Amino acid sequence: MSDQKPLEGLGTCPLPLRVHRTVQMAHGGGGRAMRDLIERVFRSAFSSGTSVPHDSAIVDVEAGRLAFTTDSFVVSPLFFPGGDIGKLAVFGTVNDLAMAGARPVCLSAGFILEEGFSLERLQQVVDSMREAADEARVSIVTGDTKVVDHGKGDGLYINTAGIGVVPAGLDVSPSRVRPGDAVLVSGDIGRHGIAVLSVREGLAFETSIQSDCAPLAGLVARLIDAGVEIHCLRDLTRGGLASALGEIALDGGVGIEVEERAIPVEAPVVAACEILGLDPHYVANEGRLVAFVAPADGQHALEVIRSHHRAAGAARIGQVVSAHRGVVHLRLSLGGERVLDLLSGEQMPRIC
Amino acid sequence: MSDQKPLEGLGTCPLPLRVHRTVQMAHGGGGRAMRDLIERVFRSAFSSGTSVPHDSAIVDVEAGRLAFTTDSFVVSPLFFPGGDIGKLAVFGTVNDLAMAGARPVCLSAGFILEEGFSLERLQQVVDSMREAADEARVSIVTGDTKVVDHGKGDGLYINTAGIGVVPAGLDVSPSRVRPGDAVLVSGDIGRHGIAVLSVREGLAFETSIQSDCAPLAGLVARLIDAGVEIHCLRDLTRGGLASALGEIALDGGVGIEVEERAIPVEAPVVAACEILGLDPHYVANEGRLVAFVAPADGQHALEVIRSHHRAAGAARIGQVVSAHRGVVHLRLSLGGERVLDLLSGEQMPRIC
Repeated sequence: MSDQKPLEGLGTCPLPLRVHRTVQMAHGGGGRAMRDLIERVFRSAFSSGTSVPHDSAIVDVEAGRLAFTTDSFVVSPLFFPGGDIGKLAVFGTVNDLAMAGARPVCLSAGFILEEGFSLERLQQVVDSMREAADEARVSIVTGDTKVVDHGKGDGLYINTAGIGVVPAGLDVSPSRVRPGDAVLVSGDIGRHGIAVLSVREGLAFETSIQSDCAPLAGLVARLIDAGVEIHCLRDLTRGGLASALGEIALDGGVGIEVEERAIPVEAPVVAACEILGLDPHYVANEGRLVAFVAPADGQHALEVIRSHHRAAGAARIGQVVSAHRGVVHLRLSLGGERVLDLLSGEQMPRIC
Repeated sequence: MSDQKPLEGLGTCPLPLRVHRTVQMAHGGGGRAMRDLIERVFRSAFSSGTSVPHDSAIVDVEAGRLAFTTDSFVVSPLFFPGGDIGKLAVFGTVNDLAMAGARPVCLSAGFILEEGFSLERLQQVVDSMREAADEARVSIVTGDTKVVDHGKGDGLYINTAGIGVVPAGLDVSPSRVRPGDAVLVSGDIGRHGIAVLSVREGLAFETSIQSDCAPLAGLVARLIDAGVEIHCLRDLTRGGLASALGEIALDGGVGIEVEERAIPVEAPVVAACEILGLDPHYVANEGRLVAFVAPADGQHALEVIRSHHRAAGAARIGQVVSAHRGVVHLRLSLGGERVLDLLSGEQMPRIC
């Protein structure tokens, strides 16, 4: 689509709609305009093209335990180095499923469009979602579109929900974390938050910092297939590494000790954090996880993680302890230690 | 909660948060404020209280076909006669599952909160969702909360996704509709749209018109249990009866004939539509369905539907024909007929 011609595929649409380049209230009204938008933008990207539109998608599953999760995405701006809201919306939900040890199967996608939002931008996001879904090997099988008045949204919000299948006998949960467990991180931290902030604040860093946003289900499958005794997994999103560890310490009722020098942070992220006055341990990620594995499996798990093309920079960063339950201690590179507490509020809003 | 005291249950929350009566950006930041909001408002309402918070909920299911659907809710205003956005969010998704013949099992709930939204109003909506979930016999098992800046939302948007189990051998879909099928509607139409519009436009009608919003899964289960040969079901939402029929005519490749005099519309709705210049056939509903059933089962199906306490006003309104495929004809009470076309755009925005 170029800026100069009508949205492709609207050829049979009533004339007044052909000339629209932006979202109209009519696109959410349940009539022909909405049907056209769904058919031509969403269904052409997401569906196999064989099914009849219906209120629900039908999914065949084996008996067993399903993982089910949801996330809304309100990131600002919608496009940033290394990703966009569409990629986030697919990978974020895929990753939440993977954190329960589940193999992601299918996603739903709910769009809240602001009147006046560019249909070309919408098409870009939808295309990005399709690519992301292909990469993560999930199908987007059902969806919904709503339109809100200009000034009652911010271009585009997306909700995705997802279903995954949990392998028999697998139980991955904070309640399984035990003192002695090795704590691994799957790569360097802080890139997503800095990438988004750099666009939002108009900052230009010497090196362009790309978001780490990526699917984690393949990595998790590799750990499961390798027979690693996984106790808990958590993807690092809002609140970063520190918040993920803090939550698991609280929910698992354990203490956690991590080494500052062992935590991988790229030099440009460190530099950007210094300029912005941010602690990288709290900066958001969208393609990193922490894994809590049985003590004897720590080294093996690290090798398995590092064998994944997106996780060569993985590191063992600490261990679970029976002391200071509910609290995370960070041993500082320069000696001494400090508590990595949950932040009271937000470090940076609308990061995902 | 009264207006004069802090949100109940925030007793252990850091002091600055105890005094907040409205949503803060911090409530979406992934830190302690968000955790408190989730624990004290959402989890206390929705969860059994036994599970550890985790990225995904785990749901045990039998093998077979699942129905999976999603809907976002952006209704304005949030509260209206007979319901609120919370009831809509639960019943809307439950109803989409039921329209595939599925027994609803569980829902997700994603909240997009606008900075400054009243926490008391949020609690009211959450309480309403819990009541609605109890009535519809589903559990809300997983959720997400995002906060957007003041002026980038409209108080509260909710997305729900849902999983249901489709009974073995059941296939309910527009592609199964056949000429001769009886077309039934489960009650009077147009009340939801008029109820919302009456508040939005500050209209006072002689009789207060209540939204029809209600769960439809129990009614569908009754039809299935009674052995009715159901071909297709569709709940009447945006675009009303006319749009639902129009879509099925198009997607099923059939013609549909309905009788104006057979379509139940309450007198106050007729009167309100006349004042507002609306055609009640296009006015939104949130607790009504159309059923397409095998010709021989028409009368039996109608009796089964009428036996449900919410559907005493059900009626047979027409039949499927092999002529005028893709088009719905309305036989007028005063003689003659007209086409019930899909509206080009919207009759009324943000009705659900």
